[in-house]
This record gives sequence, structure tokens and C-alpha cells, in this order.
Amino acid sequence: MNGAPASAAPRVADADFARRLGAAAAEVEAALDALLPAAAEGPVAEAMRWAALGGGKRLRAFLALESAALCGAPRQGALRAAAAVECVHAYSLVHDDLPCMDDDDMRRGRPTVHVKWDEATAVLAGDALQALAFEILAAPETGPAEARAALCAALAQAAGARGMVGGQALDIAAQTAPAPLGLEEITRLQALKTGALIRFAAVSGALLAGDADAARALAAYADALGLAFQIRDDILDVEGDAAQMGKRVGKDDAAGKATFVSLLGLDGARRAAEERARAAEAALAPFGAAAAPLAGAARFAVERRS
Amino acid sequence: MNGAPASAAPRVADADFARRLGAAAAEVEAALDALLPAAAEGPVAEAMRWAALGGGKRLRAFLALESAALCGAPRQGALRAAAAVECVHAYSLVHDDLPCMDDDDMRRGRPTVHVKWDEATAVLAGDALQALAFEILAAPETGPAEARAALCAALAQAAGARGMVGGQALDIAAQTAPAPLGLEEITRLQALKTGALIRFAAVSGALLAGDADAARALAAYADALGLAFQIRDDILDVEGDAAQMGKRVGKDDAAGKATFVSLLGLDGARRAAEERARAAEAALAPFGAAAAPLAGAARFAVERRS
Repeated sequence: MNGAPASAAPRVADADFARRLGAAAAEVEAALDALLPAAAEGPVAEAMRWAALGGGKRLRAFLALESAALCGAPRQGALRAAAAVECVHAYSLVHDDLPCMDDDDMRRGRPTVHVKWDEATAVLAGDALQALAFEILAAPETGPAEARAALCAALAQAAGARGMVGGQALDIAAQTAPAPLGLEEITRLQALKTGALIRFAAVSGALLAGDADAARALAAYADALGLAFQIRDDILDVEGDAAQMGKRVGKDDAAGKATFVSLLGLDGARRAAEERARAAEAALAPFGAAAAPLAGAARFAVERRS
Repeated sequence: MNGAPASAAPRVADADFARRLGAAAAEVEAALDALLPAAAEGPVAEAMRWAALGGGKRLRAFLALESAALCGAPRQGALRAAAAVECVHAYSLVHDDLPCMDDDDMRRGRPTVHVKWDEATAVLAGDALQALAFEILAAPETGPAEARAALCAALAQAAGARGMVGGQALDIAAQTAPAPLGLEEITRLQALKTGALIRFAAVSGALLAGDADAARALAAYADALGLAFQIRDDILDVEGDAAQMGKRVGKDDAAGKATFVSLLGLDGARRAAEERARAAEAALAPFGAAAAPLAGAARFAVERRS
């Protein structure tokens, strides 16, 4: 009889996930370093490097690389897709941190771009990072023309008014709304604001390989994963330690903003996150054991401490 | 003996140019109306429509349509390239007008986006217009995958840190520089800030048709045309009438900013503009009479009153 609870088993998969996440981060960092304009080109180039290099978990890069590995797409194209999605993520943070948006002066323990330089440089560095993402994807080095065009189309949709920007607009509107958002609204907001880019990253390898079935399965995985991540973020915003998070915590609560925790309570949010993580894992079933690294990301999403 | 000076001949080409420019404007307006998100989608969508519809000469759209006609590329793809370049142009104006940039409250006789809505909406509408441009180019309706990828790559380069954004950054740096810019610096600034996007528009038809020789000739044409346009803008800024221009005039002079007029004098600037217009016309030689509409744009660039 097997008396040990499953959670006491040695977490080989978790250790492997941590190793692969770290390797993806190092690899995309080197790729970005080579793809970004040199700091000597001026303050906008410096600010682009400040925003895009040296920070973050690189979850989106990891998803792009693992998606490509799973679908048999070449590593070079995958690395370029990973760099492109990290450029868009970095641009969104630079613009979100602006005084007219979330007005944040620190990010990953460092001054934000408009604090270190000025607002004009932050607007322009964000704009240029978005353009660079498409430049990276569209270049012949990324892969066959069909894949490059598909990647550009998917990233543009994920980043635009019906994706990330649309989610940010909903978030800003919620700050002055008469009542906090409900569960359905906050779920939709997050699916756009952070989910769309996570979905692009997870699908990018399938687009590179031209595998439409894999793209569908990975989109379902990513949608569940993105929500699991966001719910866990809301939990950490309440429970977390500022030094470990590298940014202000308890901020959402102080702002009277609806979160998954304010709507579901801490235990309810934990259950919802776990449910989303399991849905993400279930979406990977068609890939079998080969999808273990992506399944590891779903576990990480709900168990991480920062 | 032919006693009449050439300039007294009836200006059939000019009338034809004006007609074609107006037709291109109407056609791209309809295309943008269909491609932009509906106003009902929210304030960012409304602001995108406000910024991209109902204004401007639509020179870039005209260049894209005529470039495609000259190179034998299908009209549908050309119209999408025209819409995409107008989206990027519109986004650049929205961000340039922000308080932290040029701080303009009027554009084409109407309040700018951050005045009509707010700064956050202006940042987001600009961001979404850039994404939409790539979404339009990358969609299958634009043409073969090879052409779509080439268009995305060219637009990304034209819009990014080594193109339009780079030019805007130089412009902002010049405002706090100890001395006004010299002729070489202002030429480089303008070649980036406005020239790069004009070049993309003029080359887009050749990219759609996959004609590398035409792309080279059209790039040379566009580089000369862009400078002719900018020099004429500087002349109109001194001579123009605010009502006709639809924006503040005499502004550059008041700001102690170097312009082609401050560097060359009015007569010198007129000569330089004429020289660039002739260079643009000369670059069209390989195309023969078929390039008459594009030659008309070069004439228009230096003879327009607004």
C-alpha cells in the first residue's frame, strides 16, 4: 500500500523545470543582448537595454523555447520568438510604469525608465521595443516566410487593442469605475492584459513548425496557465514579502482594486489557481511525456513564492 | 521657335496628381474605417479612430498605392500597406503630441488625443495603432507570405530605434542641446523622423511585387522626396498661415530650433527643396512615363501651400 502522499515524492520534475527556466533565461538574455541596439546609440537605446535585459523570470521566453522543442521547430527561430515576446513584455512594463498609467518608480528592485531617464525616453523606448519585436520576428533568420508572417500576425493580435493593450485599458478604466470588477470581468481583463502574450509565447513554436493542432492545444494550455499565474500573483500581493517580490506589495488592496483574492478569499483563490494549473496540465495530454517541462510551468505558477 | 517657358504650359500632371492624391485619401480612409476597431469597443478604440481617421494629406497612403500600381502589385495588398503606414504615422503623431514630448494640444484643427481623452489613453491608443499596423500587414489578405514578412520587416525597421523613433529621440535631444543642430545633423534627423516611413511607403509596392530593382529606385526617390517635403514644411512654418496649416506656425523659430530655413535662409531652403524634388524625379527615370504620379508628388512637395 502506498502510504506516502503524492506531494512527499521527490520533485524531480520541479528541479528540472527550475533548471530549464534558468537556462531559457540565460539563453534569451544573450539573444536580446545581441539583438538590442548598442547603448552607444543613445539614451533610447540605453533605456531599451535597461528595460529588456537583466531581469524577470523570463517565463514567456521559456514557453516559446519549450513550445518549439515540443513541436520540433528549429532552436534559432524559437530563440528569436522568445526574444520578440520578451521585447513586447518589456515595452508593456515601461509604458505601464509611466506616471499617467500605474505610476511605478521601481521595477525588479531598480528605478523604472521614466525615473532613470525621463517620460519622453520611456515612451520612445517602449515604442522602439515594440517595433524591434516585429523586426526580430520578420527577419529571414527566424524561419520560413509563412512562419514569420504567422508569428507577426499572432504577436500583433496579442499585443493590440483586443489583446494586451485592451487589457491595460480595462485595468485603467476599473480604477475609476464606481464599483470593483466582478469575477468574470477580472478574468477577462487578465486574459487580455497578461494572458494574450503568454498564449503567443506558448503557441509560437507550433506556428514556427506550422502545426495547427499543436497550436490549438498549446493555446488552451496557455490560457489556463496565464490565469493560474495571475491568481498566484494576487495571492503573493497579499502574502508576499516586498524584498522577495522586488516591487511594492499589498498595493492592489490599498488601491481598493478587485483581485482574485478580494473576490474569492485566500483559500478560494488558492483552489482556483490549482484548478487552472490542472486544466493547463490536462491540455498537454496530447503531447504525452514530452510536455513535462510545460507541465512544470503550471506547477511553478501556483507554487512559486515570488 | 518655342518662346513659352516650360512652366507656363498647362499643368495636366499637377491636376492629375491632385486627383490621385484625393482618391488615395478616400480609399485609405474607407480601408482604415473597416480595419480599425469599432468605437463601441471602448475609449482606446475611439481614440485610435480619432487619430487615424479624417485627416491629413495621406501622402504615405498615396505613395504606397502608386508604388504598387507602378510595380504591378495587387490593389488589395497595396491598400493594406497604405492603411498600415497611416496607422504608424497616426500613432507617431499621438505620442509626439504628448505633454512629455512636443506638448501639442491641437492637430489638424482638432484637439489631440491626450487633450480629448487623457494621457494614458493616448499612450495606449498609439501602442495599439502600432500593433494594428503589423496585424494588417501580416494577415493573409495582404499577399504571399514572403511579401508579408518583407513588409513587416521593412515597417519595423522604418518605425524603430534606427528609424522614426530614433529621429524623434534626436529631435528631443536637440531641444536641450547647447547649440542648434547643423545642416548635416538636421538632414539626418529628418531622414529618420519622417523619411524612414515615407521610404517604407514608396517601397511597399515593390516589396509586394517582389521586385528588388524597383525597391532600390523607389528608396532613392523616397529619400529625396522626404527631404523636399521637410524643407518645404520648414518654409511653410515661417511663411504659412495658421488657419491653412491647421496647427501652430512659427513654432520652430520661437523655440530657437534649427530648421532648413534657419540654416540656409529662405532662398537657400527653396533652392535645396527644388534640388531634392529634381533628385526624386531623376530617381524615377527607370520607370519612364508610368511614374508620372510619383513625379507629381515631388512637384507637390515643393510647391504646396499647406
